[in-house]
Amino acid sequence: MKQRLRAVLNEIEVELKNATTRGKVADYIPPLAQVDPAKFGIAVMLHDGTLISAGDAQEKFSIQSISKVFALTLALGKRGDAIWHRVGREPSGDPFNSSILLELEKGMPRNPFINAGAIVISDILLSSHQPRETIGEIVRFVQSIAEDDDIYIDEVVAKAEDRTGFNNAALANLLKANKNLDNLPPHVLGVYHHQCALAMSCEQLACAGLFLSASGRNPISNHRIVSVERALRINALMMTCGHYDGSGDFAFRVGVPAKSGVGGGILATVPGIASIAVWSPGLNQHGNSLLGTRALELLCRRMGWSIFGR
Amino acid sequence: MKQRLRAVLNEIEVELKNATTRGKVADYIPPLAQVDPAKFGIAVMLHDGTLISAGDAQEKFSIQSISKVFALTLALGKRGDAIWHRVGREPSGDPFNSSILLELEKGMPRNPFINAGAIVISDILLSSHQPRETIGEIVRFVQSIAEDDDIYIDEVVAKAEDRTGFNNAALANLLKANKNLDNLPPHVLGVYHHQCALAMSCEQLACAGLFLSASGRNPISNHRIVSVERALRINALMMTCGHYDGSGDFAFRVGVPAKSGVGGGILATVPGIASIAVWSPGLNQHGNSLLGTRALELLCRRMGWSIFGR
Amino acid sequence: MKQRLRAVLNEIEVELKNATTRGKVADYIPPLAQVDPAKFGIAVMLHDGTLISAGDAQEKFSIQSISKVFALTLALGKRGDAIWHRVGREPSGDPFNSSILLELEKGMPRNPFINAGAIVISDILLSSHQPRETIGEIVRFVQSIAEDDDIYIDEVVAKAEDRTGFNNAALANLLKANKNLDNLPPHVLGVYHHQCALAMSCEQLACAGLFLSASGRNPISNHRIVSVERALRINALMMTCGHYDGSGDFAFRVGVPAKSGVGGGILATVPGIASIAVWSPGLNQHGNSLLGTRALELLCRRMGWSIFGR
Amino acid sequence: MKQRLRAVLNEIEVELKNATTRGKVADYIPPLAQVDPAKFGIAVMLHDGTLISAGDAQEKFSIQSISKVFALTLALGKRGDAIWHRVGREPSGDPFNSSILLELEKGMPRNPFINAGAIVISDILLSSHQPRETIGEIVRFVQSIAEDDDIYIDEVVAKAEDRTGFNNAALANLLKANKNLDNLPPHVLGVYHHQCALAMSCEQLACAGLFLSASGRNPISNHRIVSVERALRINALMMTCGHYDGSGDFAFRVGVPAKSGVGGGILATVPGIASIAVWSPGLNQHGNSLLGTRALELLCRRMGWSIFGR
Repeated sequence: MKQRLRAVLNEIEVELKNATTRGKVADYIPPLAQVDPAKFGIAVMLHDGTLISAGDAQEKFSIQSISKVFALTLALGKRGDAIWHRVGREPSGDPFNSSILLELEKGMPRNPFINAGAIVISDILLSSHQPRETIGEIVRFVQSIAEDDDIYIDEVVAKAEDRTGFNNAALANLLKANKNLDNLPPHVLGVYHHQCALAMSCEQLACAGLFLSASGRNPISNHRIVSVERALRINALMMTCGHYDGSGDFAFRVGVPAKSGVGGGILATVPGIASIAVWSPGLNQHGNSLLGTRALELLCRRMGWSIFGR
Repeated sequence: MKQRLRAVLNEIEVELKNATTRGKVADYIPPLAQVDPAKFGIAVMLHDGTLISAGDAQEKFSIQSISKVFALTLALGKRGDAIWHRVGREPSGDPFNSSILLELEKGMPRNPFINAGAIVISDILLSSHQPRETIGEIVRFVQSIAEDDDIYIDEVVAKAEDRTGFNNAALANLLKANKNLDNLPPHVLGVYHHQCALAMSCEQLACAGLFLSASGRNPISNHRIVSVERALRINALMMTCGHYDGSGDFAFRVGVPAKSGVGGGILATVPGIASIAVWSPGLNQHGNSLLGTRALELLCRRMGWSIFGR
Repeated sequence: MKQRLRAVLNEIEVELKNATTRGKVADYIPPLAQVDPAKFGIAVMLHDGTLISAGDAQEKFSIQSISKVFALTLALGKRGDAIWHRVGREPSGDPFNSSILLELEKGMPRNPFINAGAIVISDILLSSHQPRETIGEIVRFVQSIAEDDDIYIDEVVAKAEDRTGFNNAALANLLKANKNLDNLPPHVLGVYHHQCALAMSCEQLACAGLFLSASGRNPISNHRIVSVERALRINALMMTCGHYDGSGDFAFRVGVPAKSGVGGGILATVPGIASIAVWSPGLNQHGNSLLGTRALELLCRRMGWSIFGR
Repeated sequence: MKQRLRAVLNEIEVELKNATTRGKVADYIPPLAQVDPAKFGIAVMLHDGTLISAGDAQEKFSIQSISKVFALTLALGKRGDAIWHRVGREPSGDPFNSSILLELEKGMPRNPFINAGAIVISDILLSSHQPRETIGEIVRFVQSIAEDDDIYIDEVVAKAEDRTGFNNAALANLLKANKNLDNLPPHVLGVYHHQCALAMSCEQLACAGLFLSASGRNPISNHRIVSVERALRINALMMTCGHYDGSGDFAFRVGVPAKSGVGGGILATVPGIASIAVWSPGLNQHGNSLLGTRALELLCRRMGWSIFGR
């Protein structure tokens, strides 16, 4: 399989390198707007530790909303199922990114992967700590599951989001008005915007996400990160809610759990087999990486990877 | 495994037989309101043809929205991917059953498993035929995939829905006003209400759905019903949209693709392994079988069946 | 004043006769689509019975939603304030004509001048009668307040609306599903579509609406049609809800209570002074007569007519 | 008339003083929650300068949203009709105070009397000044039209709103995200919360609002405050949008233009005759003064004051 996989990754890199329709790089966070749209990287990690990659798979990018998967994992570890009193588990079905109210029902966000829900998770992680401590804790957690210390927060991106993230500020204030934030909005947003500004490469992301494809355990070190049940449930949430209002289409076309970020990255897991990270900065109309989605569709079809059958 | 499965089904039957909280039987379709809430049946069919069941698994009930899976399969066979120009593939995220507008965007229903989308599928099947012909075609298709001629439409239920289904009539007229119905609303509703009134037992349903767990082929007869790709995609839709606004929670708790009906039935598929049908008439707040969902949760956990990992 | 008024009406006719931007004639009711967009009529009736008009003021047109004012008056006379248990009195604020759900809250339409509310009024008038009797009653009521027997229903328009009014059928079914119709949707729609198909000229309309400018009494015959309080309240509803989601702008620009119809007519009242009817078939983006609105704005400004000050 | 008016005001004071159902004092702004619900004041100012009042008409209260009328008048004076590019003129029809999104269409609030619209007006007034200068300008403007220097901002209320007004902060950030604020949200909110914290008595309010009942001119000093057309239009906006989603009902029951505030005050104008200010702290379900509305209904009925007829 490894040989086949290597060949497939190379094919995909060649096919997509010269694609002329590459989507639109996110421009509402100024530093992200400057990323070269021609970048493309992909990395697959297998359960025996084999890491196969192609393209710009060692170049760091802003993982943005992919960080929500790690924050959720950390929050579940610290607070357990009590978090589900403050955030739901349903797809939002919301076609407009900026539709704030449809993301909430009586102050409860639909799921932890839309911005409103992720801000609640940040508030849970913040607890009664200082924002800086909490941010440090998140970075150390991601370093530990990726088994790589060379992961950090891009302060330029974090600061830019703090300065221009008016939609997130609206959400945080709305959550606070609905008594679903314990801390003050600026503190919670500080944590949230720093978490989103984590810089990682495809190879690092594939390592960090491997435990999700192995029912919660790192298959190489045998270190358990979350219980089996929680790992399965995080995968379920990625499947139903991982691509905003493009989640149904992603499940339909690709068929594996995955989470996207507006930096152009996507982390996917193939239960029992592998984790995948892909990066291409141009986005489709739902805010998900256009070529990243295409790459995953090609990879999963050619490798016969789908959770819905052979 | 068969022995273990038989034991688990019996355990579940015993556990749920005497449950005091059984949900609320649907009362808006008069004949359904008279069904005994104490009924409980479950059937599992394996790829070697083994059928294991417990409780009232041979008693027929109204499959209602489960029929949407068969109608979609038939429509894909007749019209192919052209149907996706008229119906979407995204979860509706709609918390209120009666929220008509949120089910549509510019006349296009969010997916083929909400009522608006299923009515469009009925219109596609109706094409330029007479309603009666189309209804006959649907019955014969379900009989053929279940390999059982003793499947029929309960005319009392169909007539009751035609007489009292004002919400469906509102949807059909709204679709027509938006130019997403070729036929007149009463004709399309005739087809739709008859399709929903199909009467089947758990055992029959498990047989009829087996092809979805085997990538589109009946694993016993080796007869192919849909292409591999289509079978996987129908499973994906069942996963993201099969339980209305309870789809996310179902994926989270149970972890296999499934479609519910207000008659209290649920059809689930475990790719590569089995199809499952369960029936308990009482519904939860989302309109899905309360004990049916619980039975599937227990069964899948005890058998280790999940598409999200071991 | 009469001389001044006559001069102003003639000025307005001249100014608007050759306007090149005339709006778009309603095309969703086929017979209305054939009306000549160059038509323009205006008529003003004073409390001493003087009738001054200009242009095509004696030509009949389809009054459409203007009929909602007469139907409401009739329903208040028959059922009194009990009708307010079934329909509200608030502007809908709804920017999209077709947004069905926002017109209702728990089955209760926002006001009697949006389609959903007017359909409830039709149901109230229908009561346990036959549709034909109710339609006859409405026609006789309008003839009596206009003191003119030459007012009738255009059956071609009524039939066309019955055949193509899918949006209204959706509303009626939604109301029925929410238990806010006593009769079956097709019967109620029969009444509603016939009422809307009343054919009247500007001069007839100005006569029929005179009682609203005179606190409920015909100032010429001294015949009381509704109580003072009800007349004032109908005017209030026309002011806040008479032009759908263009009501605020109409109040802002014109400053008198008025009700529009998609046939291009508008009936306005200047309390204590006059009633006005205007007709120009082309509509603006809110579905209100473009030049009719402009004519009323010019007329009221030049005559110093506004309920908001001198 | 003055004798009759004095008698009517006294009757109303007696009738309402001992009312047992007085509504609920606003509790989300802490200092407002402490106001005595038994307070009741009413003042009427006629065009000849006569001021007739009853009850606690000289006691200051927080005028809150009534200030939106003065801010709009000031903004129209400084920027003219250009403000209508940034805020609409339609009733919002929004039944939920907290429904943020329905208050906006593509970043444009429905009207200047809902919070979102008033925040845009604050931004317009702020322009490129310092918040403190702008607040001073608003205070001086209200002092000048009330011809009374004893009008000031209650800093305790203003600070409380700045600290707890998360809903307003959500609106301001949403407006900024939609590019409909020039200044930063905290600066605009500073102006807005201070303006709302103006403390005035019924007698002062009736004086300040007199120009609106006299087509824009102070009828005593003959000083023109806004043009005739603008005064009429402000009245029109008060009529269609002055009581949130209770505007239609207020027009229906009371029949004169008015604007309410959550401090329990209402400012009403009777064109050509008088201005009225009433205060009773308890609110109805729409956030408008319960007894204040009742007092206006009784007063206008007994005096025969309505803009919709005699």
